[in-house]
Amino acid sequence: MAVSSYKMPNLSKLPSIPTDEYYDRIAKFQARIKAAGLDACLVHGTESDFANVRYLTEYWPTFEQGGVFVPAQGEAVLLVGPESEKYGLGRGVLKNVRMLLNYRESAEPDYPGINLATYADVAKLALGRKKLKKLGLVGTAIITKPTLDALAAQLPGVEIVVADDVFRPLRWIKSENELACHRAAFAVAEKAIEAILNEMKPGMTELQVLSIAQREIYANGGDYEGHSLYCFGGERTSNGISRPTYAKLKKNEIIQLNIGARVHGYSSSIGLPVWFGKLPKDQLALVEFALRAHNYTIELMKAGADAASIAKKYTDWGIKEGWGDYMLYGPVHGLGIMETESPWIETTSKYKLQANMTYQIDTFFTGNGYGLRWEEGVIVKKGGCELMCKNRDKFMTMNACKLD
Amino acid sequence: MAVSSYKMPNLSKLPSIPTDEYYDRIAKFQARIKAAGLDACLVHGTESDFANVRYLTEYWPTFEQGGVFVPAQGEAVLLVGPESEKYGLGRGVLKNVRMLLNYRESAEPDYPGINLATYADVAKLALGRKKLKKLGLVGTAIITKPTLDALAAQLPGVEIVVADDVFRPLRWIKSENELACHRAAFAVAEKAIEAILNEMKPGMTELQVLSIAQREIYANGGDYEGHSLYCFGGERTSNGISRPTYAKLKKNEIIQLNIGARVHGYSSSIGLPVWFGKLPKDQLALVEFALRAHNYTIELMKAGADAASIAKKYTDWGIKEGWGDYMLYGPVHGLGIMETESPWIETTSKYKLQANMTYQIDTFFTGNGYGLRWEEGVIVKKGGCELMCKNRDKFMTMNACKLD
Repeated sequence: MAVSSYKMPNLSKLPSIPTDEYYDRIAKFQARIKAAGLDACLVHGTESDFANVRYLTEYWPTFEQGGVFVPAQGEAVLLVGPESEKYGLGRGVLKNVRMLLNYRESAEPDYPGINLATYADVAKLALGRKKLKKLGLVGTAIITKPTLDALAAQLPGVEIVVADDVFRPLRWIKSENELACHRAAFAVAEKAIEAILNEMKPGMTELQVLSIAQREIYANGGDYEGHSLYCFGGERTSNGISRPTYAKLKKNEIIQLNIGARVHGYSSSIGLPVWFGKLPKDQLALVEFALRAHNYTIELMKAGADAASIAKKYTDWGIKEGWGDYMLYGPVHGLGIMETESPWIETTSKYKLQANMTYQIDTFFTGNGYGLRWEEGVIVKKGGCELMCKNRDKFMTMNACKLD
Repeated sequence: MAVSSYKMPNLSKLPSIPTDEYYDRIAKFQARIKAAGLDACLVHGTESDFANVRYLTEYWPTFEQGGVFVPAQGEAVLLVGPESEKYGLGRGVLKNVRMLLNYRESAEPDYPGINLATYADVAKLALGRKKLKKLGLVGTAIITKPTLDALAAQLPGVEIVVADDVFRPLRWIKSENELACHRAAFAVAEKAIEAILNEMKPGMTELQVLSIAQREIYANGGDYEGHSLYCFGGERTSNGISRPTYAKLKKNEIIQLNIGARVHGYSSSIGLPVWFGKLPKDQLALVEFALRAHNYTIELMKAGADAASIAKKYTDWGIKEGWGDYMLYGPVHGLGIMETESPWIETTSKYKLQANMTYQIDTFFTGNGYGLRWEEGVIVKKGGCELMCKNRDKFMTMNACKLD
């Protein structure tokens, strides 16, 4: 067994979200539910896409799925699977917790002897004598067939509508506590990136690099990886999405790093291309251009800016500079409890940036057999944006890329 | 920045799944699709519940969802979201890959300019001139609303039925390659547990213990955590499901560890209760009894044994010994690409164990404010079972529990 001489950092003053802030969020959501003419909303969450449920309750569905039933007025109910009653009561901020079969694990055990509720029971608990006529669904991109089937069977006659828009904007503008968690998450990601740049070597597998990343994330206050971590070389750097493999790190080719942490759920990610040895000229030129493009986007980010105009300027500029064929999407997506969340900045966007919205500047260029991504997080402010990577001069620069 | 003197192990001879084995699986699945009177099946996967898709193709949906369209005869098609075409082609074993909007990230970007397919296009590609009349759904526990809506809109007139049972049994009995991956995953988990037992100290946070676990998992050949890792103390040990928190490890109370790794996707988990100092008598008695119960279950596991009878014997024995009130479920669940998968061993089960099925013996007892779990993996054999934890005398014993 390898014994490590690594010392765990002493964690002090990590930011967090106070319990009252969850209740405030529910109250704001209830005002919107009422304004939308709904009697209640059902919010859905899964283990990998837990943000909506965690935002309202701090509960994180694990192994099982989960939900929150929020009436237009009255008390919300946390909905969990058959193994999570105590977990839900302990971790979530809601005092009403009910177990429903449709939130069980995908292995679909029977759980003989466990006393389960139905949506009719939940509606009665949350609404009392008021009748449930119209229910909004939130998280429809991830809501699953067992939940849809249970709703249809257990709530006959209830009108069920998609209500993502009733909820989503609540998460767009961050509170001071949320911003503090995001900043802390970037500080953790910086520690992980710095350790990787110091310790990674040709011959290690891509997956072994995550050994360094994960060690630093959890030691320094992360409560999970911010997203599925990236470390991959060669052909895979041309992929918009990919995963690390058992392939060994080689010299003279781009190795893409995207490393993020969560603090109290709030995500971060820092992305940069690195290499050992010498990069072919065309690849080096793309890396340099992408960094210019990345910094160009940052200049465009400020409160009041039109989201579609930012995407159009970025795209037009990239094409004018001669790199249009290397652009796949972009250049910016929302950042929150999920590392990739609504709203994106696309040419089809229809909104203006507001102060305290948080974004990832995600500058991805993909060529024939290679590609790269520069990525970091910002807080939108009046007249510009705050860069959450406090030591970005160490990472978001051509000097950071060349390792040896 | 903390610099580590930790040396990455040199990985050699990690087992894997040969490409041909994926094609064999698809061929076997196609025979069952035909026998079930279906024209094709659509298999669904998500980032956290990727097993079905990975089993057939090696592809692992990440950020996005994914699917496999398998015709009763002809070539299967890998289905990915708008950012994963290259990733799908590179990682998956199928040469036909199509991007569909319904597999996009839950942030629901528009992706202007990206050329997307429909299920009608996919059916035509896979079935040629043969008309799609009856389609089976696999992974219905996780299939999402956008996919159900897209099927209804893009395949009008096609009969769509639940077909989990057409697929699931394929994954029950493991090949020699699969068993080798499982055994390797247990070897990695053992390294992680051993490092934790050596390095964890009161005052560290629960989450900081995962720094040690994750370091060892990725350094020694894991391609991900085997499941959401457990390290938590006090009240949380009474939870069937829970997560580590920022709470500091204390003396004189149970701390529950469940640590698992994946090797080429195949999961493992080793679970044991540990403590610093001295445990109250009632808690110590429950730990000792649970270990006896755990070993009792192992004795019952062999090819030909009736699953329901095992669960009934375990339950009756626990009640007779006086600990019935502490039992929540159990005592065994399937193990594969998911750490918790079908089939479970419950009193309601309706099948017999067969050679080369793999299970987790998951011995969980929950009391008032405390609880614990002993857990390890086995391969069912004629006359007994193989224990995959090769150094289990170090971990699955009362001597392992007391740390100082």
